[in-house]
Amino acid sequence: MSKGEATRQRIISEAAPLFNQRGYEGCSMQDIMSATGLEKGGIYRHFESKEELAAEAFDYAWQLAVSRRWANLDSIPNHVDLLKQYIANYSTRSNFPGGCPLLNTAVDSDNGNPILRERVRKALRGWQAKLRKILQDGIQAGTIKPEIDVNQVSSLIIGGLEGGMLLSRIEKSEQPLRDALKHLDDYLEAQVRNPTSPPAKS
Amino acid sequence: MSKGEATRQRIISEAAPLFNQRGYEGCSMQDIMSATGLEKGGIYRHFESKEELAAEAFDYAWQLAVSRRWANLDSIPNHVDLLKQYIANYSTRSNFPGGCPLLNTAVDSDNGNPILRERVRKALRGWQAKLRKILQDGIQAGTIKPEIDVNQVSSLIIGGLEGGMLLSRIEKSEQPLRDALKHLDDYLEAQVRNPTSPPAKS
Repeated sequence: MSKGEATRQRIISEAAPLFNQRGYEGCSMQDIMSATGLEKGGIYRHFESKEELAAEAFDYAWQLAVSRRWANLDSIPNHVDLLKQYIANYSTRSNFPGGCPLLNTAVDSDNGNPILRERVRKALRGWQAKLRKILQDGIQAGTIKPEIDVNQVSSLIIGGLEGGMLLSRIEKSEQPLRDALKHLDDYLEAQVRNPTSPPAKS
Repeated sequence: MSKGEATRQRIISEAAPLFNQRGYEGCSMQDIMSATGLEKGGIYRHFESKEELAAEAFDYAWQLAVSRRWANLDSIPNHVDLLKQYIANYSTRSNFPGGCPLLNTAVDSDNGNPILRERVRKALRGWQAKLRKILQDGIQAGTIKPEIDVNQVSSLIIGGLEGGMLLSRIEKSEQPLRDALKHLDDYLEAQVRNPTSPPAKS
């Protein structure tokens, strides 16, 4: 990595929690200058605009959140068990400072800021595609009921998690998120798991 | 209503969609001056601070959203049918400009802005209390399974609705919200309705 690229990455990683905590309007270039110790010109050498920096910062925050949430899943052969562990990761894994970057940035970029909006949409589509792939693999392998609608199930998982996180944030209590996780767990067992599937090998 | 009170109400009603669409930081006093045609001094005669105005604007937006969502429910005697109609209102009733004020303001006020944060929490508690009351009444009347946890069920309904609204907003499609409504509907039938309860009279 060149020195310029290293500086660019450092700016992104230091701006990301600020944008995620304060929002696009609430995080000024002055805040980012203070955090990085760089002059405005030093920042704009690496980014065309505040919008571009915010978009890169969102991608960085989202990638970090994703990699934490998808850790420890590789060794789970049964698709329903894998989804259940994925969901369980939400109660135990720490989130990015300021809470879920998708939730924050979706609300923040909804009026104006089309660049940021497009990144949020791409992030959501990537999330949905990942869940859909597991569901499709499970249908093929016989672990998941063939009649489920994979789009619907992936939307319900994501919506349930985001809704639970929102309530937990307002209440400053883990309980609503825990209730949402339990509900999704029960839902996967009752509506998604193929009861005729062979037991997991692990 | 005195002339002063009328002006105060007009400022609130004109500031509310601006705050809800642009966020607290993204909505300047200049924006509110332009919308109301008032000078800064004319606005601050009625509100101690921008924070106070934003808090009143949130309450106004929330009350409007609530009154739309709880319309047309008085005549439904069965508690599960009432909750199902309440949920169905989410697909057909128009929302406040900028989307759900609770979702927006929760994210917006999360870091800093304790006055606004407290209003959001109060709004959520009011919503939960309303749903809990229906569930409790239903348990008493025998229309709802006595073993349900009323806190849990009300959290799941709210989280499911908010999560579905968030996804629909990102996707600019009604589909994720529709999926969430269908899921909540099925959940109320399968897990909440008391199967031994007498059929609804209406």
